[in-house]
Amino acid sequence: MPVHTDYLWFHTKQPQEFIRITEEVAAIVSASGVQEGMVLVSAMHITAGVYVNDWEDGLISDFQTWLEKLAPRGLPYKHHQTGEDNGDAHLKRTIMGHQVMLPITAGRLDLGPWEQVFYAEFDGQRKKRVVVKVMGE
Amino acid sequence: MPVHTDYLWFHTKQPQEFIRITEEVAAIVSASGVQEGMVLVSAMHITAGVYVNDWEDGLISDFQTWLEKLAPRGLPYKHHQTGEDNGDAHLKRTIMGHQVMLPITAGRLDLGPWEQVFYAEFDGQRKKRVVVKVMGE
Amino acid sequence: MPVHTDYLWFHTKQPQEFIRITEEVAAIVSASGVQEGMVLVSAMHITAGVYVNDWEDGLISDFQTWLEKLAPRGLPYKHHQTGEDNGDAHLKRTIMGHQVMLPITAGRLDLGPWEQVFYAEFDGQRKKRVVVKVMGE
Repeated sequence: MPVHTDYLWFHTKQPQEFIRITEEVAAIVSASGVQEGMVLVSAMHITAGVYVNDWEDGLISDFQTWLEKLAPRGLPYKHHQTGEDNGDAHLKRTIMGHQVMLPITAGRLDLGPWEQVFYAEFDGQRKKRVVVKVMGE
Repeated sequence: MPVHTDYLWFHTKQPQEFIRITEEVAAIVSASGVQEGMVLVSAMHITAGVYVNDWEDGLISDFQTWLEKLAPRGLPYKHHQTGEDNGDAHLKRTIMGHQVMLPITAGRLDLGPWEQVFYAEFDGQRKKRVVVKVMGE
Repeated sequence: MPVHTDYLWFHTKQPQEFIRITEEVAAIVSASGVQEGMVLVSAMHITAGVYVNDWEDGLISDFQTWLEKLAPRGLPYKHHQTGEDNGDAHLKRTIMGHQVMLPITAGRLDLGPWEQVFYAEFDGQRKKRVVVKVMGE
């Protein structure tokens, strides 16, 4: 059973950015040679997430407005007593999810018509990593 | 290592419905012949989710009331400028989660006493699919 | 392909407790002999979760304050008509997530610098279980 591991690196210009990574994940799956299996796509940092949803700018903006309402920036989080100022980023990534498992069928990502994979950065402007682990046959 | 793939189809009568699918998933696991492994159950549409929780009508109603409070229908979501009216459905499915991985031990779903698997539809009345992918030995 | 299954047991003193389990999961991975693969860590009870985030007491307190705001204890949940009083616990665990998949690379958990695995108990003071399922080669 081949197991294939790769990493995607991000260094966003903005503190918050949502980046579509469907093609990057598909390329890693293709390189793995796995025909039937699954791929784990998981943020390795705790203020970023990975999620599946629509590739539509209005919706991405809706997600960001909504997350700001549910987990506002600038509240006096206790976490900030350590010198950090990103308490909200930990909460926002929790809502969006930090990882997904994608099915691989006949050598390709087995996604529905509108499913796209996104990296959601909530505390960017620094180097961060996502692990992509393919397992199958 | 056997990898076995199947799909569940849904076409709900109501826009929002939560449907228990534990037995359907268990039947696919059984057909796969996998004795030790895992099964991925993942919504292939971006306004539906899959989650594990209690099979109790009061709680299901509580979930729906709660989701309406956290992600209300009918707000002027930017996504609606595309002609869609289901912005809230994308957010609601994000809260509930879009997929689960279930352990398979001794040929059966290895679930706790109250764990039940649900399909959560937030924009129904159309044909939709869930992928069920079994992997193991 | 080895598949290795183990369980972690919890019996918390408080109704709500977050417990770091990174080392316990790492020990199970080590015992499995799997060099390349994944491990599923999943709560088997529906009022508890498993999540990955920072090991920092202030942030853990922030999570708990935030969850109380999003899913307050003591509301007249319909679920309580069954005699239960833990409706909020079902909702809180849904926000935090009920499971994670962790990559295993070169025989060890392949985690980012700040990633720690936590068991989140929302209705404790009773015996509960988490399944840990390792799969790989």
